[in-house]
Amino acid sequence: MTTTQADVDVLIVGAGLAGLTAARRLAGAGRRVRVLEARGRVGGRTHTVRLPLTGVSVDLGGQWVGPNQPHVMALIRELGLEVYPTHDAGQNLAHLLGRTLRYRGLIPPLPPHVLADYALLSARFERLARQIPLEAPWTAPGAAELDAQTFESWITRHAHTPQTRALMRLYAGAVFSADASELSLLHALTYTAHGGGINGHTLTRGHALQDRILGGAQSLALRLADALPDVRLGCPVIRVERNEAGVTLHTPQGPHRAGHAVVAVPPALLSGMGFDPPLPPRRAQLQQRLPMGAVVKFMAVYERPFWREAGLSGMSISERGPVTVTFDNSPPQGTPGVLLGFLEGGEARAWMDRPGEERRAAALESLARLFGPQARYPLETVERDWAAEPHSGGCYGALFGPGTWTGYGEALRAPVGRLHWAGAETARVWMNYMDGAVESGERAAGEVLAAQAAR
Amino acid sequence: MTTTQADVDVLIVGAGLAGLTAARRLAGAGRRVRVLEARGRVGGRTHTVRLPLTGVSVDLGGQWVGPNQPHVMALIRELGLEVYPTHDAGQNLAHLLGRTLRYRGLIPPLPPHVLADYALLSARFERLARQIPLEAPWTAPGAAELDAQTFESWITRHAHTPQTRALMRLYAGAVFSADASELSLLHALTYTAHGGGINGHTLTRGHALQDRILGGAQSLALRLADALPDVRLGCPVIRVERNEAGVTLHTPQGPHRAGHAVVAVPPALLSGMGFDPPLPPRRAQLQQRLPMGAVVKFMAVYERPFWREAGLSGMSISERGPVTVTFDNSPPQGTPGVLLGFLEGGEARAWMDRPGEERRAAALESLARLFGPQARYPLETVERDWAAEPHSGGCYGALFGPGTWTGYGEALRAPVGRLHWAGAETARVWMNYMDGAVESGERAAGEVLAAQAAR
Repeated sequence: MTTTQADVDVLIVGAGLAGLTAARRLAGAGRRVRVLEARGRVGGRTHTVRLPLTGVSVDLGGQWVGPNQPHVMALIRELGLEVYPTHDAGQNLAHLLGRTLRYRGLIPPLPPHVLADYALLSARFERLARQIPLEAPWTAPGAAELDAQTFESWITRHAHTPQTRALMRLYAGAVFSADASELSLLHALTYTAHGGGINGHTLTRGHALQDRILGGAQSLALRLADALPDVRLGCPVIRVERNEAGVTLHTPQGPHRAGHAVVAVPPALLSGMGFDPPLPPRRAQLQQRLPMGAVVKFMAVYERPFWREAGLSGMSISERGPVTVTFDNSPPQGTPGVLLGFLEGGEARAWMDRPGEERRAAALESLARLFGPQARYPLETVERDWAAEPHSGGCYGALFGPGTWTGYGEALRAPVGRLHWAGAETARVWMNYMDGAVESGERAAGEVLAAQAAR
Repeated sequence: MTTTQADVDVLIVGAGLAGLTAARRLAGAGRRVRVLEARGRVGGRTHTVRLPLTGVSVDLGGQWVGPNQPHVMALIRELGLEVYPTHDAGQNLAHLLGRTLRYRGLIPPLPPHVLADYALLSARFERLARQIPLEAPWTAPGAAELDAQTFESWITRHAHTPQTRALMRLYAGAVFSADASELSLLHALTYTAHGGGINGHTLTRGHALQDRILGGAQSLALRLADALPDVRLGCPVIRVERNEAGVTLHTPQGPHRAGHAVVAVPPALLSGMGFDPPLPPRRAQLQQRLPMGAVVKFMAVYERPFWREAGLSGMSISERGPVTVTFDNSPPQGTPGVLLGFLEGGEARAWMDRPGEERRAAALESLARLFGPQARYPLETVERDWAAEPHSGGCYGALFGPGTWTGYGEALRAPVGRLHWAGAETARVWMNYMDGAVESGERAAGEVLAAQAAR
């Protein structure tokens, strides 16, 4: 293969937010680009659908953005899209130790010694998190020790009350879509630091959950793709060849050739893919060590958001599953009412292989316990188990277990010859978020342009 | 697809010891079988080569068997192969806390309080291990808690001396080819229980390291393949279709059809493979969570086994890398002398991406520190970094990090329709060993026969 046979300048694998952002930047710099997407749609882990009975549009994947996420906010503006605030008026619910508490603000009204314990523990956690260099967590002070234990081990050791342990475990579920036992402490700290602290990830106004995107989060990918000349759907890459002159990506429809390629799919999905020559050992083994989180996103649609009438915000956390986190996901005009419930980590696993009808009944029962019997009778429900999506492998993103950051972190973004890596997992800020996907696409596009300029 | 178009009764993916054993059992039961192997050779993680300069035959992969491993021992007899004892006469070396100790027997001559600490800790560890049901570790008493922490966390918490911590970490390296921080405690216990305790894995006479196979460990696979009618090399499976009637395996050379398939490759390599319909979510996510160990097997050949003249066995353990475990790997007649050194876990990672010459020099320096300056001047050296082998992904086998056994263990062997799972990772005894590979192949063959009989 020589560059004279190249079909385009740069091939992009994956038409999620990262791949399409990279393609946009490269096309904007005058490069000929082609995007190869295995699915029959663009958007990756964002997917907006219109429900058949009620006609309401819902996001089955990523949906929130916040003012602390500059990359995705800039892209939203650039594409002429608009955002609207997440509904958060009213009281929140917290179901802990068998009791349901109603509250406003950040933290449930727990006994003072519990609040003190939680305040000390979360401060200690965030103090550790601030010491992590986001671009190289493996160089953090004490990285080896932090990466040799699970987040759960740290919680068990340092929390003094069951409520504090429950809150930290709920944080792991809600923000990582994993059990605390699946996460390296170093990763829990790194990821937390990406959001500037716990609240950066978990709160609405001013934080990562502040806004939703009008028309749905997939609008970003759809508009990006519309402006690109060459996006091929249903085109899975099954083999990657590279040499000093360029890259050939093999698909069932034939080969595609370019000087460079940006691979913008979750690393876990690359593990069994053929690379010729083989990837360097550290990169190859990294791809075996980034499993995707487990989450089922469940929504129930009601004529009205009846919980608002009861003074409730629709936001809740619950120690009891299967649904452990809920939000009011009604459209901006407020009707119909949509309750969103997440099954996270162990709860997603417990239910992922069971029939959809059973999962639906159990999720509605969770909602009814929190919001009253009306929740049992939705007009319509919808769910998405991201672990069942072969081209995502799970959501929200990759989990770093013990040993992965310190053993393999250096290989996460390092280009391999003319192969460059993008995707939310490779983000230097807000990894696994839409913001991180956009940042990673821009970074990878910049790498390609710099490599071309250097020749 | 209907069964009338089937090419054979059963397709086998992978011509390692597991796949070939399954094929042999099925062929023996009168079934038409075809084995599809991606590599240009059979044997998987066993590979015997003759070195070009000295002509000595060495095993670059699995090599040891013991009388406590009934499945592989029976196969060796069945195939008419012979074994010979691992050389273990002389004194062993242990380099700990900067000192090198010479000793005979199990444990280095450490101070009495260290010996007591190690004895108590290992007894405690083995007591826990005995409680693990090997076929279902997730049902062990306290499984959730055991699986929520790393082996390293347990060592740090319960060992009272640095020497005991070092010995346990060396055990993780030598037996799991991983750092203790990469392993779930539940997995460390389970795996230990597969060998009946620590000594079952680490000792020669009566245990897993007792014997080597005359002609090399790959002889097993070569003889198995010779007796099979249809083994296709260079034939990677890139897509797996299944329906109620059978299975179609797609390769670059075209499709192969059968009523059933036995997939006998490391689960990590299946993660990016196309399955149609997609695998059940739990199985799909399991495959993302079984990364392979990191190990470089290095051998240096000398005119004579000079260490024997100094009263040394050639066996050593060392806290200082890159080589942390050595053996006398000379052929049965005793000449030439072959020293075998392993780079395990973090040491393998530290060196895997560096030039071979640097790794060679560093490994020889390790050998020289232990066995004297003569070790610096071998006639010939050879190494195999198994992480660089795309069709293995690493050695000795898969690592279970925290959360994997309890979250996904049930999916490890459960057939998916007409797909059956074999391979050393799926073994019910001696997982990740040759014995486990054989056991898994027999079990999978039995499953297929039972499924066919049930129709």
